[in-house]
Amino acid sequence: MNAPESLPPELQLTREPLPGSRKVHVPGQLHPQIRVPMREVQLTNGETVTLYDTAGPYTDPRASIDVRRGLPALRAGWIEARGDTEAYTGRQVSEVDDGAGNAERLAALREQAADLQRTPRRAKAGANVTQMHYARRGIVTPEMEFVAIRENGRREWMREYLADAEREARLRGNAMGAAIPEVITPEFVRDEVARGRAIIPANINHPEIEPMAIGRNFLVKINANIGNSAVTSSIEEEVEKLVWSIRWGGDTVMDLSTGRNIHTTRDWIIRNSPVPIGTVPIYQALEKVGGVAEDLTWAIFRDTLIEQAEQGVDYFTIHAGVRLPFIPMTARRRTGIVSRGGSILAKWCIAHHQENFLYTHFEEICEILKAYDVSFSLGDGLRPGSLSDANDEAQFAELRTLGELTQIAWKHDVQTMIEGPGHVPMHMIQANMTEQLKHCHEAPFYTLGPLTIDVAPGYDHIASAIGAAMIGWMGTAMLCYVTPKEHLGLPDRDDVKQGIIAYKIAAHAADIAKGHPGARARDDALSKARFEFRWTDQFNLGLDPETARDFHDETLPKDSAKVAHFCSMCGPKFCSMKITQEVREYAAQQGVDEGAAVAQGLAAKSEEFKRAGGEIYIPIASSNDQGA
Amino acid sequence: MNAPESLPPELQLTREPLPGSRKVHVPGQLHPQIRVPMREVQLTNGETVTLYDTAGPYTDPRASIDVRRGLPALRAGWIEARGDTEAYTGRQVSEVDDGAGNAERLAALREQAADLQRTPRRAKAGANVTQMHYARRGIVTPEMEFVAIRENGRREWMREYLADAEREARLRGNAMGAAIPEVITPEFVRDEVARGRAIIPANINHPEIEPMAIGRNFLVKINANIGNSAVTSSIEEEVEKLVWSIRWGGDTVMDLSTGRNIHTTRDWIIRNSPVPIGTVPIYQALEKVGGVAEDLTWAIFRDTLIEQAEQGVDYFTIHAGVRLPFIPMTARRRTGIVSRGGSILAKWCIAHHQENFLYTHFEEICEILKAYDVSFSLGDGLRPGSLSDANDEAQFAELRTLGELTQIAWKHDVQTMIEGPGHVPMHMIQANMTEQLKHCHEAPFYTLGPLTIDVAPGYDHIASAIGAAMIGWMGTAMLCYVTPKEHLGLPDRDDVKQGIIAYKIAAHAADIAKGHPGARARDDALSKARFEFRWTDQFNLGLDPETARDFHDETLPKDSAKVAHFCSMCGPKFCSMKITQEVREYAAQQGVDEGAAVAQGLAAKSEEFKRAGGEIYIPIASSNDQGA
Repeated sequence: MNAPESLPPELQLTREPLPGSRKVHVPGQLHPQIRVPMREVQLTNGETVTLYDTAGPYTDPRASIDVRRGLPALRAGWIEARGDTEAYTGRQVSEVDDGAGNAERLAALREQAADLQRTPRRAKAGANVTQMHYARRGIVTPEMEFVAIRENGRREWMREYLADAEREARLRGNAMGAAIPEVITPEFVRDEVARGRAIIPANINHPEIEPMAIGRNFLVKINANIGNSAVTSSIEEEVEKLVWSIRWGGDTVMDLSTGRNIHTTRDWIIRNSPVPIGTVPIYQALEKVGGVAEDLTWAIFRDTLIEQAEQGVDYFTIHAGVRLPFIPMTARRRTGIVSRGGSILAKWCIAHHQENFLYTHFEEICEILKAYDVSFSLGDGLRPGSLSDANDEAQFAELRTLGELTQIAWKHDVQTMIEGPGHVPMHMIQANMTEQLKHCHEAPFYTLGPLTIDVAPGYDHIASAIGAAMIGWMGTAMLCYVTPKEHLGLPDRDDVKQGIIAYKIAAHAADIAKGHPGARARDDALSKARFEFRWTDQFNLGLDPETARDFHDETLPKDSAKVAHFCSMCGPKFCSMKITQEVREYAAQQGVDEGAAVAQGLAAKSEEFKRAGGEIYIPIASSNDQGA
Repeated sequence: MNAPESLPPELQLTREPLPGSRKVHVPGQLHPQIRVPMREVQLTNGETVTLYDTAGPYTDPRASIDVRRGLPALRAGWIEARGDTEAYTGRQVSEVDDGAGNAERLAALREQAADLQRTPRRAKAGANVTQMHYARRGIVTPEMEFVAIRENGRREWMREYLADAEREARLRGNAMGAAIPEVITPEFVRDEVARGRAIIPANINHPEIEPMAIGRNFLVKINANIGNSAVTSSIEEEVEKLVWSIRWGGDTVMDLSTGRNIHTTRDWIIRNSPVPIGTVPIYQALEKVGGVAEDLTWAIFRDTLIEQAEQGVDYFTIHAGVRLPFIPMTARRRTGIVSRGGSILAKWCIAHHQENFLYTHFEEICEILKAYDVSFSLGDGLRPGSLSDANDEAQFAELRTLGELTQIAWKHDVQTMIEGPGHVPMHMIQANMTEQLKHCHEAPFYTLGPLTIDVAPGYDHIASAIGAAMIGWMGTAMLCYVTPKEHLGLPDRDDVKQGIIAYKIAAHAADIAKGHPGARARDDALSKARFEFRWTDQFNLGLDPETARDFHDETLPKDSAKVAHFCSMCGPKFCSMKITQEVREYAAQQGVDEGAAVAQGLAAKSEEFKRAGGEIYIPIASSNDQGA
């Protein structure tokens, strides 16, 4: 625990490094000032494995962190150096920004956050400060090089695991149309951002972030949602939710707070967040009009966008595709409109019998976003809430509109991703990806699951991890997690962790299936450790070292069992892994030159394949002969 | 709790029906004596939903159950009526059947099981009593009609949920080569069993089972593994493991016990099991030779097969495909041979430098199995234990051998399924199914997962549910569960439940994707309940009503919240589902005749499709016009 000593224990953050791990930093070359954080796992056999690290400085015991002051603004110099932004007196924070509430309590909360106030910056008149704008002008920003180094990871340790030619040929991924290069260069990142196939959410007012990219040619990312608590919340409690989410692998965090104190809570979160923060601004706008959707106006919404852009929100969910003519298409649905944002806007459209004001003011929204480099996350307000409603007319009409809006956003060089469903049976997932790629021109897809069945309340993290893994493989760039409490209640700390781990599984399964270079090396390192009975290494290379160790301890609690050459499944007398060692000795005794045998086998197979007229399948008889 | 009053509480079984549910029985028509159990869920709106029920009489409060006497032998009359079997003095049970152990303790255990002893039956000389043999002679057995009724379920309640033509067309499954009829007739079941595409595991010495089928044209099934405890176990404890597994949806249970008291424990389990029981006989044979693999002989193995066949085991895992020439192919693997059975046989083959005796004696095994109707589960002893080893030469050489053995088994009319991996990345799963279908002639595939990544120790039920759902969709007939303790330790009661629920999710997702008629009706009923705020119905239609209710209670514990028209996610003031009601009113006000609008929309789409020259995608402009 490295929180300042003055803090009472309940206000301290989770600060321990993950077991066996330490934070290392890789410097830039184009931009020597950048230091890309990675997690180095020290194995018991002397090897080190370096992993992608979302946890920020919280897992670095050397970092001194005070949540009342916020993280260091590591991008501040990069932003200033570009010379296209200016500090200005921001919008005046008003009481309504935090919802109607106890004025005394609010004053106390704001007092806590006093040191977190920053002077906002915005683009100079006429300037456009988005990463997409720079990319299109050929500029490789520090953010882009940061992303390139981060995505590659340290390739040195992977080589041993990915060196076998037969294995690599056999396991070669199926990219499903993605174009992932062997090595991610800063120039490649620039090109992907320029063409809109990736985004780097990075508000100029959120200089604390460690930049990351969302795009189908990068590692699949996951998002975790958090929300504010009751009025009893403290900075530490809110920041701990964030710290907990990124500790287990959240690449971005959405703050879905509603109700009171949202503005002040957001200050706490953003100033302490090393990952991009997303929001749904219509939630706060609705609070400002007392929860009455029909009282929403463009002016109030616009003011909220500026408020949040000044605070440093990195991406906004904007439900501009919920168009008036699409709303009746949902009338015959099994579960209507289940998106909160979608239903707010549907209600507004109906009440006024007018087109969605987010759609009619879309270009003005672009003007705001490009002055701060806030990215669009174009919301799927008409996503299906049940299998019955999957891939219906309303959903796809909205998706096509999001494609149209993407082109408008890109005209302004505003970075854009597209939100997707929802509830979709397995056999209908591919159509979602195909439609999205087609109509949204390869803008990154960001899906909620999808859930592949409706009958798993309490286990929707699993029902949706299945769909998430599949759509991730097919090309979705970021997966929004679902927790076990989905449909039932508010997730607690353990639910958040369960949701994140389920989604790390889905994202990693997708990376491997796509053939992301190096993605499989971690699995190989863990499997090697497993085979060699290096229990501690097996735990520490897993997605959740603590749970793995606890589960092992339940059966074999002794420390000596962690180096024992057996496990509880078969006991000390008989072990299948041990027998394999004997197989190796046998193969050697038999004079089988393994390498030669494999080469010979492949050559024979190839010959046989040709003889068979190039048919994929070999008749049983001949394959059996070959075996004998 | 309906256990006899004389039992102390710790020895009572879980006997409560699932919430809101009661057991109903549907009679046969060809065979009026059969009574097919189903679970009827009474909804709060007066509807009833009838679900497939694996739980046996344990969830029926009217059933009187005494584990020391076993379940009623409901198939005894059917078997006797066929006139092709005879009772005989079985093999003498010897001390070694239960492993070397405390003689006094063993005597006590056997005393407990005294009332569970049955006189075994076998085929009369020259007879073949397998379901496949009957099927091939055109006989529709009571078992086949039982399966047909069970697979169809009660279609009456589903009609409402599956009636909408637009929805059904949109959601039509992709059967991936399966040929599932609209209604499963007894004749269809017979035909599937006759051609080997399905099995009905049903040893004539296990008359207590409620017959079920495993085949790609039926509902996807799941298996749960249990194993014996330490020497402290009692009948009740062992039977409770079984009861717990089938309560949550285990379709079959494998008893993977090793060590002491396996014979006697197996008596307890089989006599009290309404689901088929599978075993790996080589485990017990190994115990009989003191755990020394090279001391195994055909005689000892053969004796073990007869021992277990007489007890009533319904399917045997037989690793006859682990052939001597394949063993060196595993030498270069990352994780060698990870199947326990596979490594036992590899060790035997190496020690003797002889071909696997299960392979050389395969026809003799068939002779035994057909005298009792034990089904083969041809084991994949060379399955990959890590992504690195997926789909390699050793794995596929064995698979082709299993196909060869399938044809031998079918020559004897012995029912056969094929075991599959293991650890396979998503993009390599399809090849497993394709190879299996090709080489094993559509014999049912029975896979362990597969796990799609290696780095999730503690969460392998999720990592593998992803692969299981996919391969189930592609045609796998039964999914062997994986628990969170996989690779780490022995699963406890909660781990077993977690594994089963994850696999029910995978199996149901597969059924829906394949388009199994009626599979989606349960999801629709639950989603309708969700939309109408019928919380209790939502819980009770879910896979785990208790957990769903508990999770809801954590946030909104009051009973009144169970009928409240809001949930904890958005609170009482604003609810997206509520707004949908307003959308419906709006659509009605707008004079939109919903049915006509949809029909018109479809016609317009169709016209547009033709105009566009039959291209799948509609250009953005026109689709937008259409929307506006």
